[in-house]
Amino acid sequence: MKFAHIAIVILAFVLGQSRVLAQAAAAPLNPRSIPAKTLPVPGDVSAGMQEIIAAPLNPAWNQLWSTGEEWRAAANQQAVATVDALPGIRQRLHVTMTSSTMGGVHVYILKSDVIPVEHRNKVLIQVHGGCYVLSPGEAGTKEAVMMAGFGHYEVIAVDYRMPPEAYFPAALDDAMSVYQAVLKTTQPKNIGVLGTSAGGALVLEMMLKAKQLGLPMPGAIAPSTPMSDVTKVGDSFYTNEMVDNVLVSPDGFCDAATKVYAHGHDLRDPLLSPVYGDMSGFPPAILTTGTRDLLLSNTVRVHRKLRAAGVEAQLEVFEGESHAQFGRDDRLPEAREAYGEIAQFFSQHLGH
Amino acid sequence: MKFAHIAIVILAFVLGQSRVLAQAAAAPLNPRSIPAKTLPVPGDVSAGMQEIIAAPLNPAWNQLWSTGEEWRAAANQQAVATVDALPGIRQRLHVTMTSSTMGGVHVYILKSDVIPVEHRNKVLIQVHGGCYVLSPGEAGTKEAVMMAGFGHYEVIAVDYRMPPEAYFPAALDDAMSVYQAVLKTTQPKNIGVLGTSAGGALVLEMMLKAKQLGLPMPGAIAPSTPMSDVTKVGDSFYTNEMVDNVLVSPDGFCDAATKVYAHGHDLRDPLLSPVYGDMSGFPPAILTTGTRDLLLSNTVRVHRKLRAAGVEAQLEVFEGESHAQFGRDDRLPEAREAYGEIAQFFSQHLGH
Repeated sequence: MKFAHIAIVILAFVLGQSRVLAQAAAAPLNPRSIPAKTLPVPGDVSAGMQEIIAAPLNPAWNQLWSTGEEWRAAANQQAVATVDALPGIRQRLHVTMTSSTMGGVHVYILKSDVIPVEHRNKVLIQVHGGCYVLSPGEAGTKEAVMMAGFGHYEVIAVDYRMPPEAYFPAALDDAMSVYQAVLKTTQPKNIGVLGTSAGGALVLEMMLKAKQLGLPMPGAIAPSTPMSDVTKVGDSFYTNEMVDNVLVSPDGFCDAATKVYAHGHDLRDPLLSPVYGDMSGFPPAILTTGTRDLLLSNTVRVHRKLRAAGVEAQLEVFEGESHAQFGRDDRLPEAREAYGEIAQFFSQHLGH
Repeated sequence: MKFAHIAIVILAFVLGQSRVLAQAAAAPLNPRSIPAKTLPVPGDVSAGMQEIIAAPLNPAWNQLWSTGEEWRAAANQQAVATVDALPGIRQRLHVTMTSSTMGGVHVYILKSDVIPVEHRNKVLIQVHGGCYVLSPGEAGTKEAVMMAGFGHYEVIAVDYRMPPEAYFPAALDDAMSVYQAVLKTTQPKNIGVLGTSAGGALVLEMMLKAKQLGLPMPGAIAPSTPMSDVTKVGDSFYTNEMVDNVLVSPDGFCDAATKVYAHGHDLRDPLLSPVYGDMSGFPPAILTTGTRDLLLSNTVRVHRKLRAAGVEAQLEVFEGESHAQFGRDDRLPEAREAYGEIAQFFSQHLGH
């Protein structure tokens, strides 16, 4: 009796699945209702990362400024704490910073105190994140400091123009100006380009733009958790809503900020949503995300599109982490691991 | 006023994060409450995969048999529909099947009609999934058929003993017997081993056991969405609970089945939870999962442990898919893509 019951239920399920496959066009596509739940803090991450994961939702997640001026005021205030922390990070990682201009664009040069011989003819370009409106000036260099320190490279951090000074495509234009300036002194195969979040999207947008302009591709790229689709397509926008404690929601601050940057431009343009671009001919790419990342889908969709385009692409997904948390604190093993992977990827691919 | 408010909120958040980092040991680790939500069917997958993702929760997810006899009855009934479908799959993929015995273990040999010269001295061993209790006999060969067909290989599918005939470590012992038999005729570098779910765990367990026995490693492995941790550690057990429509819950049928197989043995033993094993010296590995997979964390944790052990390891994560759905239907582009990646990985690594 019991056996017969389970057998019938399982059989019905299996046959149901087959029927669904056979009649794909006819079946309705029902959304799935998920009950409320409580997520424990994951056990298999470092104690420091547990603290980051256990932190409450970003309290600014639903503050939706609608002008460049408002965003800049918020960005300037947020930058204070970040900039205060940077000298300590540079000291810990043995990195020095200088300020300069390349191709008419303000940049910071982050340099490891120890650059091995095989890295001396190579250079990395870092394009910072912050939803195209946050992390102005020095505040945008944190990832460049970590990359320089963990990877022992010279890293050029692009201080691209942001609202209200300039709107789309100013960030991309500035990044391209720096890329073109670097191309004058460095072979393309010796250049790596990296960025996280909006910076990750800008890395992909730079490759699309370089193809448009007939410029050579760099040797490798590291677009981490890229904002590759700002049209809200991507399953983790929904599965990880209120789970990711950084971005929190597809309707949160980052969406509002991106719309301010886009300034009326079509969000489906591959220069804003690069997942829709043609990725054939892209250089080898390493992508990094976390299981709770609101942009998990935006990352894995880019990975699959790169692979489908025949591009060598490596995916790293960190346990329990929300958006970009692998880069939160240079003192955590997860940061060393994530930037260690990126450094190893650049070592393998640059110069070849 | 508005600027000052947002500034203070963001500043408090940033400083709060810094404080949390500084006082990691002191802060409480609060779980996160997630409200009920509705998940739309993801847009960026094939129409056939949308149907699979939109299917209701596996109706048998919470049927928790507690004996080998009950599981076998359910497994035998479930196998009927699977076995009925297999001739069609073999025909579509141009694969023939024969039955044999290797090392005293019953196996099926799946052979592509077209095996290129460079694959003729190579062989793949497939260890089927099903929570250590499901997919007996021919029903366990579906993945082997797809691997043979998409990869153009000869694949040996291990029909390992299951409850109530035998319990832990019978499945592993049988897989090892087949591996040792294959080693008599094939160089280790020319052997690949693959499996999904419990099969993925068995692949990892085989490597741990081979190290214990002093046997050589194969050339490459493909443990897909492995049941690498059956102690319920892994963040996606919770984030993807009721999101994954196959396994559904960490307290569902697969947990009950695994406990029946374990038969009282410690679930933390690396031969049941291989994520806790020493993975140094493992061969190159490709891991495949989906963003809605209950075992997403079990997969990415193995990936990271492999990388930390210095093993070449490639991760593939498919958009919107629950547990093992990439292998659900050979007619879908996602199946071709997933097994195409695995085939390419074996091509790159076997024989070297």
